[in-house]
Amino acid sequence: MVKPEWGRAAIYTQHGNPQDVIKVYDFKLEALPEDKILIENFVAPINPSDVNVVQGVYPLPKDRTEFTVKSNSAEGGVEKLVGTIGGNESIGRVLEIGSKVASISQQNFAVGDWVMFMSSPVASAWTTHTHVSPNEVIVLKNTHGLSPTQIASIKVNASTAYRMLLDIVKLEKGDYVIQNGANSGVGQIIIQLAKRWGYHTVNVVRGRENFDQLESFLKGLGADIVVKEEDLESPEVVALLADKPVRLALDCVCGPQAMKMVKHLKPEGVIATYGGMSKQPMPASAPILIFKDITFKGYWVSKWYKKNTPAKWLEMWDDIMTMMEKGELKEQVTTPINWFSGSGSSEKPLDIQEVQNAVTSTFTSGRKEIFVFTNNY
Amino acid sequence: MVKPEWGRAAIYTQHGNPQDVIKVYDFKLEALPEDKILIENFVAPINPSDVNVVQGVYPLPKDRTEFTVKSNSAEGGVEKLVGTIGGNESIGRVLEIGSKVASISQQNFAVGDWVMFMSSPVASAWTTHTHVSPNEVIVLKNTHGLSPTQIASIKVNASTAYRMLLDIVKLEKGDYVIQNGANSGVGQIIIQLAKRWGYHTVNVVRGRENFDQLESFLKGLGADIVVKEEDLESPEVVALLADKPVRLALDCVCGPQAMKMVKHLKPEGVIATYGGMSKQPMPASAPILIFKDITFKGYWVSKWYKKNTPAKWLEMWDDIMTMMEKGELKEQVTTPINWFSGSGSSEKPLDIQEVQNAVTSTFTSGRKEIFVFTNNY
Repeated sequence: MVKPEWGRAAIYTQHGNPQDVIKVYDFKLEALPEDKILIENFVAPINPSDVNVVQGVYPLPKDRTEFTVKSNSAEGGVEKLVGTIGGNESIGRVLEIGSKVASISQQNFAVGDWVMFMSSPVASAWTTHTHVSPNEVIVLKNTHGLSPTQIASIKVNASTAYRMLLDIVKLEKGDYVIQNGANSGVGQIIIQLAKRWGYHTVNVVRGRENFDQLESFLKGLGADIVVKEEDLESPEVVALLADKPVRLALDCVCGPQAMKMVKHLKPEGVIATYGGMSKQPMPASAPILIFKDITFKGYWVSKWYKKNTPAKWLEMWDDIMTMMEKGELKEQVTTPINWFSGSGSSEKPLDIQEVQNAVTSTFTSGRKEIFVFTNNY
Repeated sequence: MVKPEWGRAAIYTQHGNPQDVIKVYDFKLEALPEDKILIENFVAPINPSDVNVVQGVYPLPKDRTEFTVKSNSAEGGVEKLVGTIGGNESIGRVLEIGSKVASISQQNFAVGDWVMFMSSPVASAWTTHTHVSPNEVIVLKNTHGLSPTQIASIKVNASTAYRMLLDIVKLEKGDYVIQNGANSGVGQIIIQLAKRWGYHTVNVVRGRENFDQLESFLKGLGADIVVKEEDLESPEVVALLADKPVRLALDCVCGPQAMKMVKHLKPEGVIATYGGMSKQPMPASAPILIFKDITFKGYWVSKWYKKNTPAKWLEMWDDIMTMMEKGELKEQVTTPINWFSGSGSSEKPLDIQEVQNAVTSTFTSGRKEIFVFTNNY
């Protein structure tokens, strides 16, 4: 746990598709301000919402910072850069604590503590190192022996799934929840939590070559029904779901595709949109609103965090981590994108161009990926 | 109160625009079944939703009946007709009571009692006479000395306005409600009830030649702000509403126009659609749902009636009628379309072609009209 001179981060200076605008830089780690903490990140997942933030689809305030970076030009040297570090979720540890932190924070920080980023709405997580204010991170004193990869997706994906099943409608045992993007990180947790809590799931995914394999995987997690999006209006699926109490639709796609789930909701059902991957609005018509009495809502777990105390956050995370520790809840499947080679004390950063290439291809792979900055935890 | 041989009704045999498909017929009043009541209607309003039902826009079950009607052909005679009487709201009186009614109904009917139609979802109200089951009407024993015209719009318009202000969000005194179609029957009542209950209203109407006159009329009812729909996105209106706690949007238009109201809602606001005059869906986008946290709901007062007891209906109507009796609530302004000539005991039906012409032009007039079947009440 030596403080290095340089950190490495995935930074964008303008909105656009991440594969075009995200560049990896080595940046100078300035002296730690006395009211801040230096964090070394272990891992940071890539969530669909992170992509939307980089694209500029979400109307979030830009948090732009000036960095001193190693020039990627042939001549070398350093240059100034003003940009934003991508990402919203990471797990790291405390490397250094500013001298005034103890007097301004109610949290009790110690070097080596694991921390979860909580700055909102954009946490600038895709970096090996970062200075944060004490109120931007939560100390996780009890991590249940889990790995950083297991814990990393708790704040956004697992908590979104957990809260959406509890907060939107009062579900009864036996009720059905229909969701699209069922193979997403959130989707995988929804399937498992719903099963555990006595609800059934109808899981919508886009058709693909390895559909049978995906269906087996989701059923292995506890999915009751797995349906291709293009079959949602087929007579077979309509007949299959006609007598099922489908009360809640969870939607990360939005647009006309999401409306295909609304057709399967029972009257007075609710569709909650938590992502907008289609970038299209949902056509909510008067008959669907008035006669079918469907409610269209959004869900944003950041808002839940804002309205609740850190004690409540920790209570929820502890419940999730306990389930993971017992093997009752599997974390989302992710593909690691390493920013270093070797392991443990022998690890060293990869060549920056290699990392840049890996990061760029990550955004077009279609897989759930997680940046791994170090395995030395 | 003599039972005539023939009634007169506005009937459609297929869906379409009312001016094309609604025809007026004299129909034979068959012998009263012993489990039914013969009603003579005084008046029946024409609501936008009635027009949508005739058009077939609303997916409601068709209630088709066989009638024996006087032929409108030159040869005269009678013919059989299968169709549906339009309309959903009327006030009439009991003319004859079937012999078994007292034993099958908990209501205490007497000849001469005023009644309100409650069959749902389509009440077949646009007729001088009709046979109804006792559970299809509510006896109004206390009508507060009001005229049939005053009472007639209570069931749909006044009650819709009343309930929407109470049932959708918990409004606090000083809150703002924005509504479109503000000059409609419902709109006029919303303005008055909101004022009475301590809320402010932003009233959206379509631009028109006599806008100033309409604005004065609505302000006379208690409107705080009256805005042309085409000005809703102007910098002046945006600035005017920026600091107003606009929590609820009431929408009878749907479609992209209604979304212009959503822009003025504060975060966590609700838009409730109770009509679909634009016949277009609302484009509910992910950022509006997730980040602005706007909820899109429908409102249908018929559902409130279904979920509540007649005692609750009468309690609400009594509150409304009391306000009207005291002059604290003005009924919606309507233009009478008479189906008879003369008044009191000297009245006689108009020529059927005159009535047909009046009914046809009614549906293209753009005014709020009310059919008046008799003034002899």
